[in-house]
Amino acid sequence: MAVYGGIKLFAGRGSVNLAQAISKYIRIPLSGHDVIDFPNENIFVRLHSSVRGQDVYIIQTTSTPVSRNLMELLITLRTLKQDSADRVTAVVPYLCYARSDKKDQPRVAITARLIADLIEAAGADRYIFLDLHAGQIQGFFSVRGDVLTAFRILSGYFAKKKKKMHDPVIVTADLGFAKKGRNFAASLGCSMAFIEKRRKGNKSITEALTVVGDVDNHDVVIVDDEIDTGGTILQAVNTVKEYGARDVYVSFVHPVFSGSATERLAGLPVREFVTTDTVPIPEEKKALLGSRLVTLSVAPLLGEVIRRTHEGRSVGELFHE
Amino acid sequence: MAVYGGIKLFAGRGSVNLAQAISKYIRIPLSGHDVIDFPNENIFVRLHSSVRGQDVYIIQTTSTPVSRNLMELLITLRTLKQDSADRVTAVVPYLCYARSDKKDQPRVAITARLIADLIEAAGADRYIFLDLHAGQIQGFFSVRGDVLTAFRILSGYFAKKKKKMHDPVIVTADLGFAKKGRNFAASLGCSMAFIEKRRKGNKSITEALTVVGDVDNHDVVIVDDEIDTGGTILQAVNTVKEYGARDVYVSFVHPVFSGSATERLAGLPVREFVTTDTVPIPEEKKALLGSRLVTLSVAPLLGEVIRRTHEGRSVGELFHE
Amino acid sequence: MAVYGGIKLFAGRGSVNLAQAISKYIRIPLSGHDVIDFPNENIFVRLHSSVRGQDVYIIQTTSTPVSRNLMELLITLRTLKQDSADRVTAVVPYLCYARSDKKDQPRVAITARLIADLIEAAGADRYIFLDLHAGQIQGFFSVRGDVLTAFRILSGYFAKKKKKMHDPVIVTADLGFAKKGRNFAASLGCSMAFIEKRRKGNKSITEALTVVGDVDNHDVVIVDDEIDTGGTILQAVNTVKEYGARDVYVSFVHPVFSGSATERLAGLPVREFVTTDTVPIPEEKKALLGSRLVTLSVAPLLGEVIRRTHEGRSVGELFHE
Amino acid sequence: MAVYGGIKLFAGRGSVNLAQAISKYIRIPLSGHDVIDFPNENIFVRLHSSVRGQDVYIIQTTSTPVSRNLMELLITLRTLKQDSADRVTAVVPYLCYARSDKKDQPRVAITARLIADLIEAAGADRYIFLDLHAGQIQGFFSVRGDVLTAFRILSGYFAKKKKKMHDPVIVTADLGFAKKGRNFAASLGCSMAFIEKRRKGNKSITEALTVVGDVDNHDVVIVDDEIDTGGTILQAVNTVKEYGARDVYVSFVHPVFSGSATERLAGLPVREFVTTDTVPIPEEKKALLGSRLVTLSVAPLLGEVIRRTHEGRSVGELFHE
Amino acid sequence: MAVYGGIKLFAGRGSVNLAQAISKYIRIPLSGHDVIDFPNENIFVRLHSSVRGQDVYIIQTTSTPVSRNLMELLITLRTLKQDSADRVTAVVPYLCYARSDKKDQPRVAITARLIADLIEAAGADRYIFLDLHAGQIQGFFSVRGDVLTAFRILSGYFAKKKKKMHDPVIVTADLGFAKKGRNFAASLGCSMAFIEKRRKGNKSITEALTVVGDVDNHDVVIVDDEIDTGGTILQAVNTVKEYGARDVYVSFVHPVFSGSATERLAGLPVREFVTTDTVPIPEEKKALLGSRLVTLSVAPLLGEVIRRTHEGRSVGELFHE
Amino acid sequence: MAVYGGIKLFAGRGSVNLAQAISKYIRIPLSGHDVIDFPNENIFVRLHSSVRGQDVYIIQTTSTPVSRNLMELLITLRTLKQDSADRVTAVVPYLCYARSDKKDQPRVAITARLIADLIEAAGADRYIFLDLHAGQIQGFFSVRGDVLTAFRILSGYFAKKKKKMHDPVIVTADLGFAKKGRNFAASLGCSMAFIEKRRKGNKSITEALTVVGDVDNHDVVIVDDEIDTGGTILQAVNTVKEYGARDVYVSFVHPVFSGSATERLAGLPVREFVTTDTVPIPEEKKALLGSRLVTLSVAPLLGEVIRRTHEGRSVGELFHE
Repeated sequence: MAVYGGIKLFAGRGSVNLAQAISKYIRIPLSGHDVIDFPNENIFVRLHSSVRGQDVYIIQTTSTPVSRNLMELLITLRTLKQDSADRVTAVVPYLCYARSDKKDQPRVAITARLIADLIEAAGADRYIFLDLHAGQIQGFFSVRGDVLTAFRILSGYFAKKKKKMHDPVIVTADLGFAKKGRNFAASLGCSMAFIEKRRKGNKSITEALTVVGDVDNHDVVIVDDEIDTGGTILQAVNTVKEYGARDVYVSFVHPVFSGSATERLAGLPVREFVTTDTVPIPEEKKALLGSRLVTLSVAPLLGEVIRRTHEGRSVGELFHE
Repeated sequence: MAVYGGIKLFAGRGSVNLAQAISKYIRIPLSGHDVIDFPNENIFVRLHSSVRGQDVYIIQTTSTPVSRNLMELLITLRTLKQDSADRVTAVVPYLCYARSDKKDQPRVAITARLIADLIEAAGADRYIFLDLHAGQIQGFFSVRGDVLTAFRILSGYFAKKKKKMHDPVIVTADLGFAKKGRNFAASLGCSMAFIEKRRKGNKSITEALTVVGDVDNHDVVIVDDEIDTGGTILQAVNTVKEYGARDVYVSFVHPVFSGSATERLAGLPVREFVTTDTVPIPEEKKALLGSRLVTLSVAPLLGEVIRRTHEGRSVGELFHE
Repeated sequence: MAVYGGIKLFAGRGSVNLAQAISKYIRIPLSGHDVIDFPNENIFVRLHSSVRGQDVYIIQTTSTPVSRNLMELLITLRTLKQDSADRVTAVVPYLCYARSDKKDQPRVAITARLIADLIEAAGADRYIFLDLHAGQIQGFFSVRGDVLTAFRILSGYFAKKKKKMHDPVIVTADLGFAKKGRNFAASLGCSMAFIEKRRKGNKSITEALTVVGDVDNHDVVIVDDEIDTGGTILQAVNTVKEYGARDVYVSFVHPVFSGSATERLAGLPVREFVTTDTVPIPEEKKALLGSRLVTLSVAPLLGEVIRRTHEGRSVGELFHE
Repeated sequence: MAVYGGIKLFAGRGSVNLAQAISKYIRIPLSGHDVIDFPNENIFVRLHSSVRGQDVYIIQTTSTPVSRNLMELLITLRTLKQDSADRVTAVVPYLCYARSDKKDQPRVAITARLIADLIEAAGADRYIFLDLHAGQIQGFFSVRGDVLTAFRILSGYFAKKKKKMHDPVIVTADLGFAKKGRNFAASLGCSMAFIEKRRKGNKSITEALTVVGDVDNHDVVIVDDEIDTGGTILQAVNTVKEYGARDVYVSFVHPVFSGSATERLAGLPVREFVTTDTVPIPEEKKALLGSRLVTLSVAPLLGEVIRRTHEGRSVGELFHE
Repeated sequence: MAVYGGIKLFAGRGSVNLAQAISKYIRIPLSGHDVIDFPNENIFVRLHSSVRGQDVYIIQTTSTPVSRNLMELLITLRTLKQDSADRVTAVVPYLCYARSDKKDQPRVAITARLIADLIEAAGADRYIFLDLHAGQIQGFFSVRGDVLTAFRILSGYFAKKKKKMHDPVIVTADLGFAKKGRNFAASLGCSMAFIEKRRKGNKSITEALTVVGDVDNHDVVIVDDEIDTGGTILQAVNTVKEYGARDVYVSFVHPVFSGSATERLAGLPVREFVTTDTVPIPEEKKALLGSRLVTLSVAPLLGEVIRRTHEGRSVGELFHE
Repeated sequence: MAVYGGIKLFAGRGSVNLAQAISKYIRIPLSGHDVIDFPNENIFVRLHSSVRGQDVYIIQTTSTPVSRNLMELLITLRTLKQDSADRVTAVVPYLCYARSDKKDQPRVAITARLIADLIEAAGADRYIFLDLHAGQIQGFFSVRGDVLTAFRILSGYFAKKKKKMHDPVIVTADLGFAKKGRNFAASLGCSMAFIEKRRKGNKSITEALTVVGDVDNHDVVIVDDEIDTGGTILQAVNTVKEYGARDVYVSFVHPVFSGSATERLAGLPVREFVTTDTVPIPEEKKALLGSRLVTLSVAPLLGEVIRRTHEGRSVGELFHE
């Protein structure tokens, strides 16, 4: 076992509740630090006590306000590093810009690689992420880390529910997600269907075309990695309904819920929206979805991995053995 | 326009014919260099004349013999660099290890990132690749370059043939390829279907399960980025046939044809195997497939991009404007 | 003279007007690019035409909204770089976090160094800055560039006005600015005085203590590099007034004007606020200060330096010979 | 607490006495190593015993002979690093070239940044410095470390003496030092004054102009970070005397004493020269100043910080809590 | 002593027997990992259990098949690194391309430097090598490590044998080896002679010219660092025989034995070929040389150094004290 | 041909005469710059005019005063780089520390690698060196450059003289130089002999043992790369004389002449000391050797290579075609 200093957890302003849940799970108190927005909007970070020689974890998601949360993450990483921490791990439950992961048109950047470069430039020695949009994004990083998945948490939920459902079919609303959808279906022993759509331009306008596969008279679980504006899901739900689906469930890891996504979702004929707490959901958005919103916590998963990382124990065996 | 020295093309031993075709297309002769396998298997590279101040392109695929071809690429890159070339571009029609692009099981490496690191460590200033297994692999590189696609060449072929076909359906044998298959179908105005399969372990044994979508009484074009052992394609062809497909075509960019792939393919009820020359196909393998093998050349595409790169002109507009 | 491709100017959203003025001054049109805030707040940048082989300048200040403007700068730099520009220069009229330039208390970071690292990580080959809070910040960068000063523009203004003023004395409100204040005074041939104050904690509350030097019955020009909340200036103005100053002028390069700074300044017995356009001032803030606000443009200075940088001509001689 | 190997101290030839004092203070013997000037002036360093896996501190000032002392530091760092030390800390009580910290004229380098780059290139993992000319120099380093101040040692000396002095005023001879002078004054509860001067060209000729503030009939303590040729101090002393100062003390951290500085100082009407041992003072120079030279040792400070660094304990709290 | 995690040894396919001997010597079992050549010749490496936080040694020679063995080394290094090992040491008993260590003709690369760069790019934190062709190659590496010599093992063998020999003379067949030959002779207390030859071009044809020194009526030990094709040795043996040598021994560290080297050697009038196991010798080659082939194991040497490296103890004292 | 800005030559203080000779040879005037030793021994470099966009060559040997000359080189490199030169080439006729090129004893550094790292850290884009102690040192550099040899100049001198000599034999005084000596002999068509010696410790005491080969009644040319203290040469001369040599010549590239080397040499029975001007020889040392000292200039060689480097023309063909 490698020997690092004591473990220290810090909660960024983007992940206050999740960090507390992790802290509680692994029974290590959060360390204190000030994060102040100066009047000129420069973010100021000051640790309450020294982290010299420590093994430090900063938990900060990069959802809205995205630029500020990201800058806070970078400044906190640098602060911890410069204060002579032995090792600093960026725990980012939701990584922004992950959908800009390839050059699918000319004259744009692979912004996700830039984000990786910025996190490394800031001083991260390791990272812990959850369900990156594409597994290849891990290859954008030169430092090492762990990319975890919360899909087992989601599929575990449906595994328990499955008996009461009508021969559920797993549906993916995005063909880029087809393979992960298949794995989801396989873990539940379900069949699957696909929705073919095309996304035109950058205006997030989607158009569902057709269902490939059979959903008629089945319960349907539409799965995706995140819900952003909800436009894709809206079309998917309507489409499967047109094709004769019975109850529809929507399951996704990251509740990004941009703009009026929750308003849009609230009006859909969906039994449950099953998601996690990688992105904090404001109370008013929660209220719109009411009891149909099921939020499963990733805190035990992140806590377990943080503990194993600190102790130099295998993370892989947590999932595979 | 940026000013570099004169342009120089070098042909690696893995791409002799393709490099000659490119040379002919852009009317720039290949520069001479010795590549010798010493008795101790160390590869020795010596340029016939100086490349000091030149803008140099080394064309070398990394198909079989993979390790030797890759090492030759790395040593040639270093030789060109150390000889004070102004800029060295690695033109790699087929990039090895591109399928090792994510950590889909614990305790393995993202080898494609390693390959990117090696190419950069050797001294490449730029790269030109064709149809990487995943677009994200471009994000593994710190140096800049162009990732091109030969799918337009393939789809152009079928566009001409389409009228004579029976309402062709595009089928992908691998769900990870679903999105690219959709684009292929869209460019031809065809509908599509998917084959669900699962690949178990690392033994390249695939098992086709079912066709999602309709192929009955249709001509079918199965598309993929490469054919390796041919196992996946074999199952796909048999499956669509079981589901009532009429004529079956198989189209793919990289004819890797590992082991006895061509023997396996030769026995299949396939009208045509439509591919490119990113990987050289040995004469005996060609003979097995006979006239059913249609090889379209990527030389004009690579030649055009090399010319534009040298002249500092847009490559993107070649494809999008 | 070094030969680069043609010159291209891009205007970030933080410096639209200034970039237009520069474009007009050097008679080179701004190049087009889309900058879109996606619903999930991810910033999307796409160039209208290729910059391959070009010598590119992106003009983007990093004032409010600071995090967004900085991220836009970083993403635009990466986009230009990845699109194969030959050289990318970050022209940042006002650099955020420049006051976090040393570790003046434990457990904080030198955030200005982080900003330097981020700009370099994003792909800047050069930089052009104006009046960094401390000249040493230039040493935080590994890439090369030019740090310019607009103080000559400000002192030139007072040089013309001086005859009509009552034996003006230059006053610095911050001892850290004493040396630059002395240079300002020397260039005008004025005497100077200092205000001793201490800044407590991070709450931007300043307390002017005393004037060291003589201001009684003199016109006073208070100089500083920037006005943030205006608190320091407020105390300075009041203090020199208490010590018998006649007309008071305030001159500074960067009109940051955080929070209710302009409201605060508007109530002060100040004849003129003489500043530049490194930071855009919203119309409503301009209105508050009315004709007392004198804004001198740095566009000719930046334009001249951009031109010389492009042509490989000396920038230093612009100032010193 | 981070676990490193045992601690090892090495004394460079520039800091023999100080290193011994540190060694004595923290009760850790100096490790042996040969440092030989070969006839061809190449410096040869050989350790007496292995430092593999150890936490090593090399104490070496970079005062005269500057180039040799610096090269010895770099070679020793590399030797320790290459011998597989776990961590090598450069303890440099006086860092050369720190005054070349910004580009205050065209066509010169920021040499202090070069020095930082050289120290890092040589292999230093950390640094410990004392009173850099500007705090921003810490931002020139990519590796981490501690910049300490000896001003508390100096101010502590005057705090004890203060009662017997005539209402002492703190005076800075250089406006660039105004802020630090203010802190010095604040810690003693004294008022302060400034001397305005201008340094012309590179010939170290200074010209004191005037005293801003009141020194008449006060004892005066002139403070600065170092005395180089003594020219600035000479003018400062004469100026405050002209302005009516009573007893004059001069206090500074680094007794660089270049050329005939001590001869020049010896003739001044100064009660005491209060300094430290960051730079060794030759016996003949000591003799010239006699009992007026008060040298306070930084050994306890450096020793304490070395101990805390080794043990992974906070250094900041040593100063602030 | 530095504290790393537990020690783990891995055996590459190029050094199976040697790794087992080392494992046995230091009583640490080899860790399991799969190394599979996929049908497309991509090498796949998967560890059987996690090495997170461990101190890992991969033992892999880079003799034939050179490119594959090197690629396997690089991929295994990356796999170990990416699996979060604390430290990964490349133990390479025979380093390929070491003879390409300088630019002795224009337009070639220093390929040994490339190999160093590749090993570092792959993730090695340290290295352990044996008898590099030139000691300077160690300077090609930025990471640290140990370069050992097996010449003591060889000379120890002759020291025991010496009494029975006829006043043995040490002969070097290559002038570039003269100095090491001298050390070999000195350790045995023998005189020495040189063979002058010139190697023309890259075709490994050598031509022995003359013996400088006296071998007449002496037993002769020809020493070299490796035998590649055996051509140099063949000429050397014949030449010393022509000059009157009695019994001839050939001693060398690395039995590379390229092509038909062993056939060539088998026919020579040589009493013994004394070498080591840094390169595995196939059984059929062993058979050709029969009992004249004396193979001394480097396993105790490597095992001892691995143990000391792990424990943070001096390696140098193993050889010099 | 690559296009750089105009060419600029700068003469460091260590190579004033040589730089002038080069300037004259290629008809490009030396550019002006101030190099000042401040009283505190900090070296100050300021260019007289801008080098922005230029292709710059700084000619500076690193012989005595070694540390100062090296530091001046590093600071000048950084100054040229920071002033935005397009390319900076370090032309170092004699590179210090080149004999510390391998780890031939434990607990020392490969200092030559450190020197390479420092030159690169300072900002050199290329290098031009002459006769490095070992060709492998070129592999210590990551940037590219040319390592030239002056041995043709030396051998050319003897080629003209050869007819008048008595069957000259080439002798090397150091076995590490045997191979280069052989090449020297081969180019003259001479036979050769070796002197076996051992250098003990670091005290430069050498002890010649014996001549291997025949020198009796021959003229002898002792060749080496440099003369340092002259101790090795002294013993070599005496030894070949003992063995019956007639006239003795000593030829070497670098006249380092440390300490009282010239006094020592002056007393030897040597006809001529044939060397070059890579190291400036003080007049008093020249006087001691009088007309026996033959100094051949490397200026045409360096000038030619500088010109070709600037113009992007082959350097290799200068020597090999």
